[in-house]
Amino acid sequence: MFLEANDQVDVKERLVLKPVGRNDSDDISRFSDGLCNGGGEEVLIPPLNFAVVDRGIYRSGFPTTNNIGFLETLKLRSIVYLCPEPYPNEMLEYVRSVGIRIFQFGIDGSKESLMSIPNDSIMGALRVLLDIRNHPVLIHCKRGKHRTGCLVGCFRKLQSWCLTAVFEEYMRFAGMKTRISDLRFIEAFDVSCMTECVLGIIYRYHGGCGSQARRLSYSGDLS
Amino acid sequence: MFLEANDQVDVKERLVLKPVGRNDSDDISRFSDGLCNGGGEEVLIPPLNFAVVDRGIYRSGFPTTNNIGFLETLKLRSIVYLCPEPYPNEMLEYVRSVGIRIFQFGIDGSKESLMSIPNDSIMGALRVLLDIRNHPVLIHCKRGKHRTGCLVGCFRKLQSWCLTAVFEEYMRFAGMKTRISDLRFIEAFDVSCMTECVLGIIYRYHGGCGSQARRLSYSGDLS
Repeated sequence: MFLEANDQVDVKERLVLKPVGRNDSDDISRFSDGLCNGGGEEVLIPPLNFAVVDRGIYRSGFPTTNNIGFLETLKLRSIVYLCPEPYPNEMLEYVRSVGIRIFQFGIDGSKESLMSIPNDSIMGALRVLLDIRNHPVLIHCKRGKHRTGCLVGCFRKLQSWCLTAVFEEYMRFAGMKTRISDLRFIEAFDVSCMTECVLGIIYRYHGGCGSQARRLSYSGDLS
Repeated sequence: MFLEANDQVDVKERLVLKPVGRNDSDDISRFSDGLCNGGGEEVLIPPLNFAVVDRGIYRSGFPTTNNIGFLETLKLRSIVYLCPEPYPNEMLEYVRSVGIRIFQFGIDGSKESLMSIPNDSIMGALRVLLDIRNHPVLIHCKRGKHRTGCLVGCFRKLQSWCLTAVFEEYMRFAGMKTRISDLRFIEAFDVSCMTECVLGIIYRYHGGCGSQARRLSYSGDLS
């Protein structure tokens, strides 16, 4: 919902009004009709614990069909789903209908599984987050506190955030449910293990820059 | 810090790696050298209570000189400052040196000032946020809880978020310091009062689309 001038397009399109994360343009009339929810525009219900992590990356608890109106404004291209359970049918139907790709990294969410978060799952999920071809992407688990908090924490370490700020952010979402084992996991996560992954992408990308350009691709989940 | 392919530019620029909110491109070598803080890259210290509100909009508590390294990654164009006190000299020096514009809307932050948040200040601040020429923009007060929380809450109402989600977000930052008077302010804030402002911008913008295109401008603080 921002005012944006772009000299390359016609007048109506020049003033682009974007809801959260929206990439394509709406026209003025839609905005002025619907502004401030005074023109009969739907009230949007973000999923529990929803927040913006970074440009094109969102986090939340498990979205339900109540959140579909809101999710549509995000124009999601993919979901990083951190629970081992199959995706619920009613949401799967929506996700498939709009062509959102689900990357599932099943992590046990029980309190007893101290330090049981598998490094491979976090690394796999980070690979998805780092590749903007998957953006906009929503990370979610059940409540958006622990598994999502751990993944975002590792992502912040990759961004060179000091541990104090990483923990502050984790605790903002987990609140009273903060788990010391999660903080310990984030602290212990060795971001240098991601170097090879990122340099591998760069290498493959460089390999594909000639006339016979190949698509940049990972092995496995990111085909 | 994302991998971004853009066919319009040369190979080095095609793989753009962006820290939070960074708009211009870094090259590959910078990233691969500094990745994962393994190449001597500085640890970044975000300000207290820092978070991304939306694309190009950030929020936090009062930034200090310790945060300058982090702030530089945001490439801020402006700051919405919500305290009545003058901006501290040591930060003012940095802000001026990099050409960041400060929009000050002085709001009394004391607990006793129940319902004393002036509507005009919030509306003025919202005008700044809605205009992407001011992005990337950082909203801050002292602790990033109350005044910043109220402004972001009103912004979310403009985005048609349901009040439950608006309050959840406010409370995530204010925690135990949540003020009922703030929630009441957000609830009572009439977003339709922004319609005129936005339509005014649209009107002026349309007025400036001919051969003698004028700059889109507000009266007052946004010259």
